[in-house]
Amino acid sequence: MRNFKMTISYDGSRYKGWQKQKETDLTIQGKLEAVLSKMTGEDILVVGCGRTDSGVHAENYIANFHTKCTWSNDAILYYLYEFLPEDIVVKSIELVNERFHARYNVKSKTYVYKINTNKYRNVFERKYSYHIPEPLDLIEMRKGAQSLIGTHDFQGFTNMKPSNKSTVRTIHAINIVENGDYLDIEVNGDGFLWNMVRIIVGTLLEVGRGKLNSSEVEKILQEKKRWEAGPLAQAKGLFLREVQY
Amino acid sequence: MRNFKMTISYDGSRYKGWQKQKETDLTIQGKLEAVLSKMTGEDILVVGCGRTDSGVHAENYIANFHTKCTWSNDAILYYLYEFLPEDIVVKSIELVNERFHARYNVKSKTYVYKINTNKYRNVFERKYSYHIPEPLDLIEMRKGAQSLIGTHDFQGFTNMKPSNKSTVRTIHAINIVENGDYLDIEVNGDGFLWNMVRIIVGTLLEVGRGKLNSSEVEKILQEKKRWEAGPLAQAKGLFLREVQY
Repeated sequence: MRNFKMTISYDGSRYKGWQKQKETDLTIQGKLEAVLSKMTGEDILVVGCGRTDSGVHAENYIANFHTKCTWSNDAILYYLYEFLPEDIVVKSIELVNERFHARYNVKSKTYVYKINTNKYRNVFERKYSYHIPEPLDLIEMRKGAQSLIGTHDFQGFTNMKPSNKSTVRTIHAINIVENGDYLDIEVNGDGFLWNMVRIIVGTLLEVGRGKLNSSEVEKILQEKKRWEAGPLAQAKGLFLREVQY
Repeated sequence: MRNFKMTISYDGSRYKGWQKQKETDLTIQGKLEAVLSKMTGEDILVVGCGRTDSGVHAENYIANFHTKCTWSNDAILYYLYEFLPEDIVVKSIELVNERFHARYNVKSKTYVYKINTNKYRNVFERKYSYHIPEPLDLIEMRKGAQSLIGTHDFQGFTNMKPSNKSTVRTIHAINIVENGDYLDIEVNGDGFLWNMVRIIVGTLLEVGRGKLNSSEVEKILQEKKRWEAGPLAQAKGLFLREVQY
């Protein structure tokens, strides 16, 4: 069997997230498996680097699949380009070691959350950013972000119910970058719990608006209570930017 | 009566163009008149700076309307912001001389046509650019564009049927600018015939692909035959950028 690694870009707006579901065919995994199965005549299982929620986008999502198909990389790429919907693009494909697993082998992931800080919404970016016209205190936001760097129990920063699964994760960096009318919050870590990036962003935005003191972020982390952290930031502002292996 | 000038940005994707039509309520003018009429209790007529075709976008479209409404500019702006669909934004509003007419007073207009030259379509820009992965000869395109500068009869560059209306227009500038993965073709002129910018772009793209020699553009202009010019470039790449008064 050949094992292919794919780099995928998608506009998540109309999808119910990455993961295949019985109730809907509007999932990225579902669309990819349908086209690859048709292409190969096999029952293709696509392994993704992780789930993305309904409405979340990806610039460079990584997935892999096994097949007996002997087509060239270019031929597969061309087929996918022609038959996938216009909001999903496989940007590159490479033959990898049979043991490569897009989820198990992840070393870290980088997400970016895009905020439009202009007075008015941008009609062309409205599906790809969260519009916050009020001023944000970036110095305080950066201070608050510092408390989250490192290895911590992020139980307070997920909507996952407590279970016996570990909620300890390591965040390597949070960069808050001004980019014209936009504010990009880039988060890199070894893994993320359900909704974790969006709750981190929601919490930092509370700090930016002055509703939460930057020093309270550390307390929220220690208290591990979801309701003390900020609200879930809108899905449409979130992009999976890169996956490191 | 007070006369208000508005600067409007819209994503034209789902609209049948600027101009109100009996058959559909999906027009920019129609949406604006409906909201302004509700706001004022009057039958508001919105005068636009010109028609844009179905699917064409605007960064800064100019329109005006007369009203007895005594609301402040900010209050009107806020009302429009709240009640217009999310793909239409009135970015500013100002009280102008009662005689100001958004169409009659136009001195010139600038359109920009955006081309994505990357190998793959960009899922986030797919509705706001024309995707041309083949290489384009910019030097030849710029040469071809030069022939169009000045005052000419653009009969060959419109889908308008010949009539006794003048088809003479002046093009002041055509700038072809590389912008990362994008190519922006900016056209400034005193006025444009129906489909004229898209046919100019379609013709320059034929030159860029080597299907037409840059020296032939002048001949097409002189022959005034629509079928000698290039095809109509897709609407989704075209933006009305600015109107000069």
